[in-house]
Amino acid sequence: MLRDAVVDIDEQGRISHCGPREQAPEIDPGTAVLDCAGMLLPGLVNAHAHSPMTLLRGMGGDMPLLRWLREVVWPAESKLGPEDIRAGMRLGSLEMLRSGVTTSSEMYFSGESVAEAVLEVGSRAVIAPAVIATPDLGELGGWRRMVEDISRWIDTDGLRFGPGERIELAYGPHSAYTLPPEALRVIGEQARERGALVHTHVAETADEDTEQRRSYGSVPKLLAELGVLDGRVLAAHGVHLDEEDIRVLAESGAGVAHCPGSNAKLASGTARLTELLEAGVPVGLGTDGPSSNDDLDLWEEIQLAGMFARLSTGDATALGSAAALLAATRGGARALHRDDIGALESGRWADVVHVDTDNPAFVCGVDTTDERILSNLVWAAGAECVRDVWVAGESVLRNGEPTGVERAEVQEAARSAAKRIEG
Amino acid sequence: MLRDAVVDIDEQGRISHCGPREQAPEIDPGTAVLDCAGMLLPGLVNAHAHSPMTLLRGMGGDMPLLRWLREVVWPAESKLGPEDIRAGMRLGSLEMLRSGVTTSSEMYFSGESVAEAVLEVGSRAVIAPAVIATPDLGELGGWRRMVEDISRWIDTDGLRFGPGERIELAYGPHSAYTLPPEALRVIGEQARERGALVHTHVAETADEDTEQRRSYGSVPKLLAELGVLDGRVLAAHGVHLDEEDIRVLAESGAGVAHCPGSNAKLASGTARLTELLEAGVPVGLGTDGPSSNDDLDLWEEIQLAGMFARLSTGDATALGSAAALLAATRGGARALHRDDIGALESGRWADVVHVDTDNPAFVCGVDTTDERILSNLVWAAGAECVRDVWVAGESVLRNGEPTGVERAEVQEAARSAAKRIEG
Ligand SMILES: [Zn+2]
Ligand SMILES: [Zn+2]
Repeated sequence: MLRDAVVDIDEQGRISHCGPREQAPEIDPGTAVLDCAGMLLPGLVNAHAHSPMTLLRGMGGDMPLLRWLREVVWPAESKLGPEDIRAGMRLGSLEMLRSGVTTSSEMYFSGESVAEAVLEVGSRAVIAPAVIATPDLGELGGWRRMVEDISRWIDTDGLRFGPGERIELAYGPHSAYTLPPEALRVIGEQARERGALVHTHVAETADEDTEQRRSYGSVPKLLAELGVLDGRVLAAHGVHLDEEDIRVLAESGAGVAHCPGSNAKLASGTARLTELLEAGVPVGLGTDGPSSNDDLDLWEEIQLAGMFARLSTGDATALGSAAALLAATRGGARALHRDDIGALESGRWADVVHVDTDNPAFVCGVDTTDERILSNLVWAAGAECVRDVWVAGESVLRNGEPTGVERAEVQEAARSAAKRIEG
Repeated sequence: MLRDAVVDIDEQGRISHCGPREQAPEIDPGTAVLDCAGMLLPGLVNAHAHSPMTLLRGMGGDMPLLRWLREVVWPAESKLGPEDIRAGMRLGSLEMLRSGVTTSSEMYFSGESVAEAVLEVGSRAVIAPAVIATPDLGELGGWRRMVEDISRWIDTDGLRFGPGERIELAYGPHSAYTLPPEALRVIGEQARERGALVHTHVAETADEDTEQRRSYGSVPKLLAELGVLDGRVLAAHGVHLDEEDIRVLAESGAGVAHCPGSNAKLASGTARLTELLEAGVPVGLGTDGPSSNDDLDLWEEIQLAGMFARLSTGDATALGSAAALLAATRGGARALHRDDIGALESGRWADVVHVDTDNPAFVCGVDTTDERILSNLVWAAGAECVRDVWVAGESVLRNGEPTGVERAEVQEAARSAAKRIEG
């Protein structure tokens, strides 16, 4: 968090200097400078999302999970074409920029449509095309073809590409309960060969987790045994991890995406955040899919992470404002095994958020202690105070409106796709 | 929740008709009509607040509760004059209108300043001047004088007064742990004589509650024994109520203000909402004071109430969107023992909120099922979609800006008061 600060950006879009206005160096011609009177933050990182599901938002209201998946989500998803996924992702990326999220870690189908949407809106994403075994497709459930598609894509376009390296590709094995161990082993191997991230659901619900423990000891142990944890791994949810699982993840350096809102709304439980952090596991925050959570506002997850940490420990000082905000920025970057985003530091991408402090939330303005400003930001301000956003030094949100797309057009396209799917 | 509806309002500011556009009756001349293309809701009811504490928002960051009260809150409150309280309450009322809260149930000092601020901004409040025993003021701790002041005020101005009966007066005994039983008995008696509400903190934290149980069995039992529950009672928090307490409250008709956000942030625990509702206790939602919670956005409490109900029952369908919204409207009115607010019905005050559905939250617009709109409203939209607000038929918020006061001036007055107190 920087007040009255200057951020210098080089021609590639990386931060070349960052600090108080009075200590700013002479700049080279051609260097862009962000010089804001309010407050600058690093762009937030949404560590676990299925953002194209904006199109399904609110469908089925408050049904029980399995009935909802079978009767509402899966039938609706079967109607989604690549154009729909692009429309849903454009709306999702736009919503995220408006709340200051510059990077999202996505798991979904039609990776190309997702990438196209992200590049149009100008945000940043780590895109893990979903891999899932569908019994209809024979014994192997088609997962081999899905894995090959991802590997071929990486081999063609590179692990990272786009202006400011906005897109990173990853592998998205859905979970250990929807894939055979052999699939996880192969994915781990192909990901390690390419230095790619493996993004998978781990221990989200008690039912599924109990089943996995019976079969494999636990999912973290299975992933360790299959060699998957030797590479870059992001485990989404981790609600039902026990102490040993936490130790296994910590030793391997795997990251966890904590999704407190989704886990609460779906009655799945609450991950042991303070224990994960104490064990040294890199933890980011995620919204999960907007069909269940229901918006992509990461500030809600920041607040919820703090509240749940306090309720579970009985300690009103657990996860203070600074720690909660760190989980949504640097923590998210670390969970994705990235050291080039998530902080305002020289050498990292200039993914920057300008917060407008002319709001009742900042009752003393910025003219007060760091502690109070952070508390106002995290507990009272949030998304509504995000004014401007830059990604890789490029202005992508100006005064709350996107620069790369027309908001009305994006909403309209999503609306007509959503209506068709509903109908 | 009404789509494409018409609300007719009589000269007093009460609803004379409310329903679909095509069934609207011929109207008398002099009847105001709200005819909105979007969505109309009854104004939300914030059942427990100390809104002037906006001035203290974020002070002391994330300190442990008792240290925070002793080192930060109490010293700061000792510097608050009536003008400061008016400034803090004006900011609070404005914030609440902007999120669609038309009525708040307030407990604080300087009731006159609170009432003045509410009338200036044009919102509605049930104002319970706080009664607390201060050991410095001798054996009785000055509580008798405070109670007499309230009784005299009611006897002078009436229980309800102001345009559209915007102000209702009540008694605000802080709690059973800051007052002797005799004070609670006297307050109960004087309140019953005047038909006034008694608004008090009950079973908020485990420490305090354990102490009370040792002395009196429990606070609900004490209040029953002292006759307080024979009148109108609003119990704030109720985190540590047991089954018997819930039965005692249900039998007496006492209301509970559920404050999930404050109770989580301060690590106090979570009230048993589903059990309270099942027992027939009228439950409203409250933000508690903005020094601890930290904003006055009741939509967050609506979401949290749903999440906590689901986490505690393990049932993803517990407290659906409609039930959660009801707790924040009709439930709040019932908890305050009011049948003239909290719903869009003939005869009630025309406290109305217009929600703008031109927002990504409403991915299908309003052209979908009631269930989906409610889900979008509660889980994705919230305060940012509140566009216009009427209280007793009078426009008090238009396109997000207050009509009775200048937002910039209100913010500036609060800022200078907050800075002086901090300094
Ligand atoms: Zn997920
Ligand atoms: Zn309170």
